Amino acid sequence: MPDPDDQLEIDFPRLRDRLDALGRVGGRPDGGNSRLALTDADREGRDLVTMWMRDLGLEVGIDRIGNIVARQRWPDSAAPVMAGSHIDTVQAGGRYDGNLGVLGALEAVTTVIEHGVELRRPLAVGVFTNEEGARFAPDMMGSLVYAGGLPLEEALGTRGIDGATVGEELARIGYSGSVPCPGTPPYAFVELHIEQGPILEHEGVTIGVVEGVQGISWQELTVTGQPNHAGTTPMRLRHDAGVVAAHAVVAAREIAREIGGDQVATVGSFKLDPGLVNVIPGEARLTLDLRHTDEERLKEAESRIRSRVSELVESEACMSEWRQLARFEPVAFDPRVVDLVEHTARDRNHTTRRISSGAGHDAQMMSRLCPTGMIFVPSHRGISHNPAEHTDDSDLAAGANVLLHTLVALAREEEI
Amino acid sequence: MPDPDDQLEIDFPRLRDRLDALGRVGGRPDGGNSRLALTDADREGRDLVTMWMRDLGLEVGIDRIGNIVARQRWPDSAAPVMAGSHIDTVQAGGRYDGNLGVLGALEAVTTVIEHGVELRRPLAVGVFTNEEGARFAPDMMGSLVYAGGLPLEEALGTRGIDGATVGEELARIGYSGSVPCPGTPPYAFVELHIEQGPILEHEGVTIGVVEGVQGISWQELTVTGQPNHAGTTPMRLRHDAGVVAAHAVVAAREIAREIGGDQVATVGSFKLDPGLVNVIPGEARLTLDLRHTDEERLKEAESRIRSRVSELVESEACMSEWRQLARFEPVAFDPRVVDLVEHTARDRNHTTRRISSGAGHDAQMMSRLCPTGMIFVPSHRGISHNPAEHTDDSDLAAGANVLLHTLVALAREEEI
Repeated sequence: MPDPDDQLEIDFPRLRDRLDALGRVGGRPDGGNSRLALTDADREGRDLVTMWMRDLGLEVGIDRIGNIVARQRWPDSAAPVMAGSHIDTVQAGGRYDGNLGVLGALEAVTTVIEHGVELRRPLAVGVFTNEEGARFAPDMMGSLVYAGGLPLEEALGTRGIDGATVGEELARIGYSGSVPCPGTPPYAFVELHIEQGPILEHEGVTIGVVEGVQGISWQELTVTGQPNHAGTTPMRLRHDAGVVAAHAVVAAREIAREIGGDQVATVGSFKLDPGLVNVIPGEARLTLDLRHTDEERLKEAESRIRSRVSELVESEACMSEWRQLARFEPVAFDPRVVDLVEHTARDRNHTTRRISSGAGHDAQMMSRLCPTGMIFVPSHRGISHNPAEHTDDSDLAAGANVLLHTLVALAREEEI
Repeated sequence: MPDPDDQLEIDFPRLRDRLDALGRVGGRPDGGNSRLALTDADREGRDLVTMWMRDLGLEVGIDRIGNIVARQRWPDSAAPVMAGSHIDTVQAGGRYDGNLGVLGALEAVTTVIEHGVELRRPLAVGVFTNEEGARFAPDMMGSLVYAGGLPLEEALGTRGIDGATVGEELARIGYSGSVPCPGTPPYAFVELHIEQGPILEHEGVTIGVVEGVQGISWQELTVTGQPNHAGTTPMRLRHDAGVVAAHAVVAAREIAREIGGDQVATVGSFKLDPGLVNVIPGEARLTLDLRHTDEERLKEAESRIRSRVSELVESEACMSEWRQLARFEPVAFDPRVVDLVEHTARDRNHTTRRISSGAGHDAQMMSRLCPTGMIFVPSHRGISHNPAEHTDDSDLAAGANVLLHTLVALAREEEI
């Protein structure tokens, strides 16, 4: 006999209303969202979300780094199945990045409570502080502190781009809570998020089953040559830092293509000095962003590009220097949670695709504490961190329903 | 019987003293020169040079664009053999660019007068206004107006980077003369100049016999792609403006090498937008500087690079736009004057090399009016438009002596 709860659906108009209401806090005339972490707009967003949480009867706790965890009231202290994300945005962001994960989780819990769905353990909604890192570095700060990856005091002392510290701003907006950090490990954690990339839309797939988060290598390459007159210096006597750097851009593209699979390589910044039309560049500086789900392939990409650049530098008789800007190893989500997300989506007749996240998410920090997975829904044209960020209502609803059923399944399962 | 004047030598210590004295006007602590056109420093430099001219008994005329022409006094109105250059500098320039051509010419005339060298026609020294174009565009303004290539009124109305006009500034510094423009064609014109490139030094040659000035093509290329997340956008779905632009840099280098000869190609400016480490560039903008002595090869370089860029743009599904920033056809100097410079240098046992100028010079404007040639001396490491600009004394002396004997030969020859 089929479980009647299999037919359970979230209330999409309510989710849509809440997305719109939260989108108006720090809303921009162009439809985007501007709610930098720990600003007045962030406080207003937090006040709105915690009001909804309390209206639902959830037990709302604020920890010392400002993370909000709202838990179903429960007779014992059973570890909850947590879902969540963040509500801070970049300076000119969209309405779904983060917000969908928080409000989708809240919608799932609301649906469960409304329908009296029976569970073995409670559900909880997590709202993590400063995921974007646009005002205070590093990003994913709240979940990192929650997971014990960054000491609380260090996080609180972080100074932002405007000179204020995290601790001061948390106190100012009234979200310096008393729950200790690191936090209590949940039973499991699931994050619903927009893809922020074009793959699902491109392939006409509704649900991205996220297997993990790519490892990231950020490096800066500086090439030093000899600035000289563009008209009077013959080609054979040049030490053109710009030509070497341009070859490096081309090499990064080629090597990424050769390695294939998930490997991506991007040169996003490229500067020449002196930067004049008639002067051979004496210095070139570029950034290289390499990502792969497989640490060994990522290392291979790093090493092949460095070795290719060395050859180029030598052939132009220039000098070069590499500087590591950031380095994170890949994260693999729990295979059981990944399978569960996939089965849940397929049971609801959604097209699915295994995918790895190219961006960082709170879920990767939570995966240090408990079995974790993520659900992606399509992003129109892959646009993100931009007011033009968009996901169709049908995809938002599909994602929230997959989240709902994944949470219910996790909250019903026998302890493993 | 050999002509005793064959042994004639300039007085190098006097030339050295004058170079140093002029170098102190607008002198910089780093040994460089800062004497932008029509500034107080330029006036002071002009006052010093015209004082030396008048001390020598020359007839000094100032024309309406401020060019100074100092002519040997002569019983008739015979067209003089003119030598000269400019004394304005870029903001942080060297002590030889321009100055050497003016003071070398003055030294040659001084030597001729002191030794009573007999000539068929007078010598003259020309000092042209605003050759550098660093304050007022275009460069080579004074010689261009002298040669009739730019209407006087247009030149006088030119507004500089500081808002002042050429006409106002000429009047202010007292160099708005009454001699009409365009000027009277000389019998011939010869300019001594530092190479501003590394070829002579690199090959251990003392005298560059300048055959002409390279044609110049300046273009700006804008590539428009699709800015997207560097982590979440697979390689196959990218429209990376930066990769296309980097390929264009590489292609410019390759095509210049393939065309060979005098062909040079330089990408001096290269900018990405938004220019962030983790965003695929949505726009790239670069400048391309192409030069060649042969107009047909220059056109070939332009066309091959455009066609290569079109392919690259198409393969990345981007868009592109070219904008012409400047275009000058090559200038060929008078073969007879070129030969004369070469023979004169060889007669004096100097090593010589035929060379084309990659930079613009007043001589190229004067070549519209009369047989013209140029003499280059080595630039240490090719450095120019920089306080570190340097030419050894022995090379300065060699150049000035070659100029002296070239001028004497031209001033003695029978009308052709």
